[in-house]
Amino acid sequence: MTSVTAEMRALSGEALGSAFLVAGVVGSGIMAQRLTHDIALALLCNTIATGAVLAVLIVIFAPISRAHFNPAVTLGFALRGEFAWTRVPAYIVAQIAGGIGGTILAHAMFAMPLVGHGIAARTGSSQWLSEGVATFGLMLTILGCAQRRLETTAACVGLYIAAAYWFTASTSFANPAVTIARALTPSFSGIRPEDVPPFILAQLAGAALASWTGARLFVKSSGV
Amino acid sequence: MTSVTAEMRALSGEALGSAFLVAGVVGSGIMAQRLTHDIALALLCNTIATGAVLAVLIVIFAPISRAHFNPAVTLGFALRGEFAWTRVPAYIVAQIAGGIGGTILAHAMFAMPLVGHGIAARTGSSQWLSEGVATFGLMLTILGCAQRRLETTAACVGLYIAAAYWFTASTSFANPAVTIARALTPSFSGIRPEDVPPFILAQLAGAALASWTGARLFVKSSGV
Amino acid sequence: MTSVTAEMRALSGEALGSAFLVAGVVGSGIMAQRLTHDIALALLCNTIATGAVLAVLIVIFAPISRAHFNPAVTLGFALRGEFAWTRVPAYIVAQIAGGIGGTILAHAMFAMPLVGHGIAARTGSSQWLSEGVATFGLMLTILGCAQRRLETTAACVGLYIAAAYWFTASTSFANPAVTIARALTPSFSGIRPEDVPPFILAQLAGAALASWTGARLFVKSSGV
Amino acid sequence: MTSVTAEMRALSGEALGSAFLVAGVVGSGIMAQRLTHDIALALLCNTIATGAVLAVLIVIFAPISRAHFNPAVTLGFALRGEFAWTRVPAYIVAQIAGGIGGTILAHAMFAMPLVGHGIAARTGSSQWLSEGVATFGLMLTILGCAQRRLETTAACVGLYIAAAYWFTASTSFANPAVTIARALTPSFSGIRPEDVPPFILAQLAGAALASWTGARLFVKSSGV
Repeated sequence: MTSVTAEMRALSGEALGSAFLVAGVVGSGIMAQRLTHDIALALLCNTIATGAVLAVLIVIFAPISRAHFNPAVTLGFALRGEFAWTRVPAYIVAQIAGGIGGTILAHAMFAMPLVGHGIAARTGSSQWLSEGVATFGLMLTILGCAQRRLETTAACVGLYIAAAYWFTASTSFANPAVTIARALTPSFSGIRPEDVPPFILAQLAGAALASWTGARLFVKSSGV
Repeated sequence: MTSVTAEMRALSGEALGSAFLVAGVVGSGIMAQRLTHDIALALLCNTIATGAVLAVLIVIFAPISRAHFNPAVTLGFALRGEFAWTRVPAYIVAQIAGGIGGTILAHAMFAMPLVGHGIAARTGSSQWLSEGVATFGLMLTILGCAQRRLETTAACVGLYIAAAYWFTASTSFANPAVTIARALTPSFSGIRPEDVPPFILAQLAGAALASWTGARLFVKSSGV
Repeated sequence: MTSVTAEMRALSGEALGSAFLVAGVVGSGIMAQRLTHDIALALLCNTIATGAVLAVLIVIFAPISRAHFNPAVTLGFALRGEFAWTRVPAYIVAQIAGGIGGTILAHAMFAMPLVGHGIAARTGSSQWLSEGVATFGLMLTILGCAQRRLETTAACVGLYIAAAYWFTASTSFANPAVTIARALTPSFSGIRPEDVPPFILAQLAGAALASWTGARLFVKSSGV
Repeated sequence: MTSVTAEMRALSGEALGSAFLVAGVVGSGIMAQRLTHDIALALLCNTIATGAVLAVLIVIFAPISRAHFNPAVTLGFALRGEFAWTRVPAYIVAQIAGGIGGTILAHAMFAMPLVGHGIAARTGSSQWLSEGVATFGLMLTILGCAQRRLETTAACVGLYIAAAYWFTASTSFANPAVTIARALTPSFSGIRPEDVPPFILAQLAGAALASWTGARLFVKSSGV
């Protein structure tokens, strides 16, 4: 019974964390879009809010759910044998449901229709390469922090995503659950629903490649 | 006698910390408003100053007063049995008095009439939902950091508030004492006095819900 | 002889650190002023560069010189009996000389005449109150971090100054050596030479008040 | 055989880290340039992305390669007898090859021709002084953090570079491999190929001077 309770807490953590993450991304995008006409400034505000809330969510939820909030990360750890495959489906469901809840919550806070339809076209090989690179780097960051304190991991993931918003052409979604949730908003951080599937494929490919690379790079060295 | 002295130091810490927090919020809003016409940029500057000073104040005052600076947080800990109810009234008085002092200090530094009247309308269910969500997240962040070092708590609270400035429609007041103090300024970060009571109700509801949620989520787990 | 060598290293550290601090403040002000017409944006860039370089300088120089870089801080610690009065004069000379060197270095890097004349008027009781509050808060931050790790102090001082750039009307010079050095630049971060003396008086008053306050607030408590 | 494997991992780390660093610099410059006409804002976004990704890369690659990503740093440590001269050539090749790969990757993500030609003129004694100062400060930061935790070094290097983007007239390339890689992009962060050699000379001079200075400043003191 204890493990059932612990798993319920883990799934609640994934859902609540994913909800706050997506509410952070979508909400800050709406706020920024309303307050300025300079797109770089809007993206900068969106970036800072996203990186900040992501780092906080990792610190507070990692002890109960590992703070994945991201099916690509959950699958990446399962591939490496560090997360039970039997736990994967419920984790992904919690992440997607939480993410969608986050979009709805952001819309409610900004007095918009609760569910909308993404209108930003994000397609083409450059965008897909961007998502692959973004998720590769995210997973490599997580793996590279495996031997460090939780605070270090949280700071690095927040900083990495903040940077990747800018150095990838797709603004680094890097997360299938967040991508699905962002297809439901017509605002700044949205994506057309038809552009979602190739984004997710690119994200999964990036995460898988990072799992493979990390296994070769981050072995415990005998001293450099 | 020692405990009387310790309690006086605690109340001084709450008052001084609340004063610097509100001076930080109000002062940086006045400065930003004077220097640019871009509202997003003004809010970004306001955000950075607020998050930065809040993190610093938590580090330096937590050892003497726990660094609540916030009646919703004080009441939330009292509800959880982690703060004596008998200490609550003086704490709240110190927080409100300090906060009002912070508004006066900011006005003095910027050569404005020492007390004014908020003119920004912040009302309606979306705003109230925003305040509830903002305070829920703030209290959950504090509870989720309970087992971590003070520096982690300070960084997470500062980052959370910086993010919440953007992902909530109300710019995340999330603090009844700060809300009252901000009703006394006609500047960028003000609020109409008549909009204060529902803000405070929403904040208290959010903090109470977070106390309940945290008690269920953040139990010491037997390992995930 | 060892202590002579150690004191020479300490003075070199104060001079080099003060030079980099002022070069950081003045240089980033020149860069920002050249790249934008939005004053808030220019101040934001100035803020970020100043806070960042200050935190770094404290980390690297604290072990050899305590990383004061500031006569008000050196005098504050002497008042508290935590820094030998005999060391004070050389420290202040090193800080001022280093600061002036920093202005010259910034001008050289930006191809300007090496020494100029500040043209920004910064006078009046609101400005002086701002400098008093800014330096009070800076000294209180340093004292409040006394029991913490060096990294915490460095981060808090950098964050505090970043915030105080915005919540004080004077942009928080908070340092007599830096104030003198900034009187020698006609650029964004300059100050008229005739406005320097009252700034310094206000800074010293703020630091003295903080020393007095800190002695009462930050005693080792018997537990709150 | 183990050491061969460890050295291959180290070189892979240098190459991959340098690639991500340059992709971060160049990619964020392209993104910012596309989204705004305000040059200060573009540089601010470029700054934040660069500092953030650099800090992350140091955390994750330092355990396998020391995370130099910079021939001036590698040579500086060799000069100090803290890095074997026999390892230097391969390190520099990996850093340059990785850096060029980063430019190509950024161009691919933003749908540009994979290799271009820098058009920004960056020449003259002020620019060279800037690069000397920038690299001197970078190397001094690294040496000053030698006794501290990896996270401190990573944060200080990221913060230092973020500040130096603003307080030097050259925006602080401070890295010969990155300079070469940036000569291959016509975008925001590029440099004319003919301006590269004096930049590299100034960077090496700054690093050498910092090695000399650090050896005198950062000796283990007998207590200050």
